[in-house]
Amino acid sequence: MDTFRTIEVKRSIFDNNDRQAGELRQRLKKEKVFLLNLMSSPGAGKTTTLTRTIEALSNELKIGVMEADIDSDVDARSIEKTGVKVIQLHTGGMCHLDADMTRQGLEAMGTENIDLAVLENVGNLVCPAEFDTGAVKNVMILSVPEGDDKPLKYPLMFSVCDVVLINKVDVLPYFDFDLEKCKEYINKRNPRALVFAISAKTGEGVEEWADWLRREVAQWQKD
Amino acid sequence: MDTFRTIEVKRSIFDNNDRQAGELRQRLKKEKVFLLNLMSSPGAGKTTTLTRTIEALSNELKIGVMEADIDSDVDARSIEKTGVKVIQLHTGGMCHLDADMTRQGLEAMGTENIDLAVLENVGNLVCPAEFDTGAVKNVMILSVPEGDDKPLKYPLMFSVCDVVLINKVDVLPYFDFDLEKCKEYINKRNPRALVFAISAKTGEGVEEWADWLRREVAQWQKD
Repeated sequence: MDTFRTIEVKRSIFDNNDRQAGELRQRLKKEKVFLLNLMSSPGAGKTTTLTRTIEALSNELKIGVMEADIDSDVDARSIEKTGVKVIQLHTGGMCHLDADMTRQGLEAMGTENIDLAVLENVGNLVCPAEFDTGAVKNVMILSVPEGDDKPLKYPLMFSVCDVVLINKVDVLPYFDFDLEKCKEYINKRNPRALVFAISAKTGEGVEEWADWLRREVAQWQKD
Repeated sequence: MDTFRTIEVKRSIFDNNDRQAGELRQRLKKEKVFLLNLMSSPGAGKTTTLTRTIEALSNELKIGVMEADIDSDVDARSIEKTGVKVIQLHTGGMCHLDADMTRQGLEAMGTENIDLAVLENVGNLVCPAEFDTGAVKNVMILSVPEGDDKPLKYPLMFSVCDVVLINKVDVLPYFDFDLEKCKEYINKRNPRALVFAISAKTGEGVEEWADWLRREVAQWQKD
């Protein structure tokens, strides 16, 4: 039997998403909840990366995960196995989450005693970048098989991200992917973005990324 | 010097996309132009697959390609090398093309003497599926590194496609991707979808897919 619930989040009735996002962030600040918005293309490895991140941090932090999808609950089932709190959000066909949809998810999940709440956004490099979800930090995953030219093609996504995780570096030998060139393209779009090269499959590089996240959560809860 | 033009396609002013799409298809029928709408996630291999397809068919068919992107012209540059007619469409941030944007692209490219016009849609598994572009057939590419569960997560995309190309089968040994399970999922979403397993990199399976396309174009021009 699944231990997680699935809820339908409704399209926001508010026309000022930025204001809703700002209010949500203020509320999370007061509750000492760090909200991470995790974005990527379909299949870049959001759920596997999240599983590895949970493994690295769940001894120290109380973690809650919102899995947003148009349909299915395969990701919530995967996250459930890590033992953290998880809820499946269905977006009714919507290709992204806005701040009010995120609020609906957080309230359905419950944020009492949660240090780190993660929103796994719908797999898409376009629309999710256009909506502030109220997250403290935006992180996107670019996987090696997608190619090193993606920062050129999806400028907004790379511009709004605080961190870019280059995932699946274990398969670098089998693809024409130039890691240095990719970092250059990312830097061109967003000079302040941090880049970590990881393999969620083998665990390579995950500790460095988890260290960054650990420090950010501590900072958010302290200030 | 680039031999292709880049144009900005404007968001449609029409509220009835289905009607615009139907009218465009009728016009293409009269002109004996077969329009193929090619969709996928970012980095699934649309441009490489298209390059292989052009190599297989350009001796028999006059081909024209519209490369739709939010930004950059890297794909148009790649296609240009094949020697076929190509135009770069920029969507002004839009995550998909509708029928009128497609019409703008076709008119800018010019369809005189074109047998096969290909629209390489924006890399996205959600929004492009919601808009009939006026294409005769919809084809989507799912690449092995994305995972075999994508038909479960992006139901509409798989429902609207006539053909699913499972690309990058050359890297099957390095990923947990069950080809038979994936075909089952596709069949569940869309029993009439044809599935071809290909590697655009090595050329495996491309001839079978090109044969299908060759027959479809002939049928469209004959009826």
